[in-house]
Amino acid sequence: MPERALILANGLFDSVFAKTTHGLLRGPSRYTILGVIDPDYAGQDAGRVLDGCHRSIPFFHTVAEALKLTSDRPTHCVVGVATAGGMLPDALRKELLTAASAGLTLVNGLHYLLSDDHEIAEQATAGIIDLRKPRRASELRFWTGEILSVSAPRVAVLGMDCAIGKRTTAMLLRAALRVQGINAEMIYTGQTGWLQGLQHGFIFDSTLNDFVSGELEGAILACAREMNPDVILLEGQSGLRNPAGPAGAEFICSARAAGVILQHAPARSHFEDFEHLDCPLPPLREEIELIRLLGSQVWAISLFTRGLDDAESSQIAAELEACHGLPVVRPLEDGVGRLAETVREKLFS
Amino acid sequence: MPERALILANGLFDSVFAKTTHGLLRGPSRYTILGVIDPDYAGQDAGRVLDGCHRSIPFFHTVAEALKLTSDRPTHCVVGVATAGGMLPDALRKELLTAASAGLTLVNGLHYLLSDDHEIAEQATAGIIDLRKPRRASELRFWTGEILSVSAPRVAVLGMDCAIGKRTTAMLLRAALRVQGINAEMIYTGQTGWLQGLQHGFIFDSTLNDFVSGELEGAILACAREMNPDVILLEGQSGLRNPAGPAGAEFICSARAAGVILQHAPARSHFEDFEHLDCPLPPLREEIELIRLLGSQVWAISLFTRGLDDAESSQIAAELEACHGLPVVRPLEDGVGRLAETVREKLFS
Repeated sequence: MPERALILANGLFDSVFAKTTHGLLRGPSRYTILGVIDPDYAGQDAGRVLDGCHRSIPFFHTVAEALKLTSDRPTHCVVGVATAGGMLPDALRKELLTAASAGLTLVNGLHYLLSDDHEIAEQATAGIIDLRKPRRASELRFWTGEILSVSAPRVAVLGMDCAIGKRTTAMLLRAALRVQGINAEMIYTGQTGWLQGLQHGFIFDSTLNDFVSGELEGAILACAREMNPDVILLEGQSGLRNPAGPAGAEFICSARAAGVILQHAPARSHFEDFEHLDCPLPPLREEIELIRLLGSQVWAISLFTRGLDDAESSQIAAELEACHGLPVVRPLEDGVGRLAETVREKLFS
Repeated sequence: MPERALILANGLFDSVFAKTTHGLLRGPSRYTILGVIDPDYAGQDAGRVLDGCHRSIPFFHTVAEALKLTSDRPTHCVVGVATAGGMLPDALRKELLTAASAGLTLVNGLHYLLSDDHEIAEQATAGIIDLRKPRRASELRFWTGEILSVSAPRVAVLGMDCAIGKRTTAMLLRAALRVQGINAEMIYTGQTGWLQGLQHGFIFDSTLNDFVSGELEGAILACAREMNPDVILLEGQSGLRNPAGPAGAEFICSARAAGVILQHAPARSHFEDFEHLDCPLPPLREEIELIRLLGSQVWAISLFTRGLDDAESSQIAAELEACHGLPVVRPLEDGVGRLAETVREKLFS
């Protein structure tokens, strides 16, 4: 019987901070999901609230309630929210203590390490998986250039910002390419990719800066060696000009991505979390040029449509397509068939 | 009596790997330097070998020899070389053991932590300073945007590559601006800056990736608060397209550098350490455009002239100046008066 998890989204389900929860609900997931903890939606179906598709995964007020009401007994309790800086809110901590004392294994992707929290560590007799626990320099890999000998082309899904749908688009694209008989693999760079069962990757933002490019290269080398893929998709992180932590050049300069799928959020005016500051999102055209100068090229644009109704996002997609002369897709509304077609044409025709 | 150090450069003095040693010889230095360990030059004067200027700092074959021959007794032994990936060569390890057992404090900027090396740690009764010892997420700072309230303008010294003279130019520029009565401070981002006695900064490449921008911002906030500077110089790291670890956007997007001094190495064809790979240094013009797109502008170009004779570098400087319409200087040959003049015009005229 597979491992079964409760996911903690405490009060953040309807925000980009719950992107880990959203990803696990969309699937795939390393664990069978028995319920999501978020009092705001208690009693409703998580899938229905997420995207209108019923998934028979209920919301519960608390872990205690879920332990009472779920027929199958959960084996794991997963922190399903991200927080700026990765600290642990008190409400979450309380739920984790309940789960720990009930004998569940705690799975945590925050920078805040549960294994360093004496009270939690003492209670968690079934164990703690701290996905963001940093590895030491001696365990990390420096970039060597061996990537230049990898024949499988890389395609990076980069974004204008954090929490803009990079991983979701990459997961959907991987599936769409496989349907077309293309052996597509994907490198995860965040905890959610690992939670979704991806086999090759590393946690980008909890890696010592000097080794990020080497770990990325190492994950690609292992993937190429073990899976012999036709194409390797790379889950991007942050955005090239995100003031809180610019990233993305690694995927182009170090992983030598042949092409880029660029995630864009037309309804977002500022970098996520910094709406109160003078941090406007830069123009899409500049981002495309930046990617060209870094050494790759944008093959298609993929839209994060939160904040737009169907008619609005559809019109914006048409306008952007005419303006930039690139395919512009809405993955959640229309699927990623056109992205798969584009990758196929660029690499295999 | 100030602390007195021996510097280990074992066999690497005449390479960019010894840039820490070179920086401490040029000064300033946190320690009085009694000697440099490098058998290749034993008996000669380190300053003379470095740049023709005698500094009464002798080379020695070994730490043991230095302990015998130096009149003052050293208090510290500093690892003066950097290595790709930051590991510890055996020859260095042997010298460190000698120094440790002689009661010297070991100062190390490699990723390899001496405090984790049981044999060395046991011998080092006078202590170990591991400059690259990573701090935990709970001790690190996430970017907040408070930088937007810092009135002192920032000027970043970025480079096309690693080991190209960024720190040296920034240190010289700080001094030149001070001579002109401008209160210039500098943020260090590598271990050498700390060894040279700079008060504000952090070790960029041994910081968990998610916190690099926040630590940079925090160092600038502290510097602005404590020193009330007219201008803050930022020591750049790596290069924007260095495949082993692209960096630099943080100084523009997170630290909001108003202008950039760009270090260029006309005689260098490939990224340092990767001469055997297809990793050519990109064109200077593209780098200037990249910096513009990231949100700053190049104010001047500064040359790393290693591999060129005086006539060659002088001619190249003149050609680049005509080509790019920017001041192009040779800091070690001509000083940085023109850089100081440029910064002054851009910020204070």
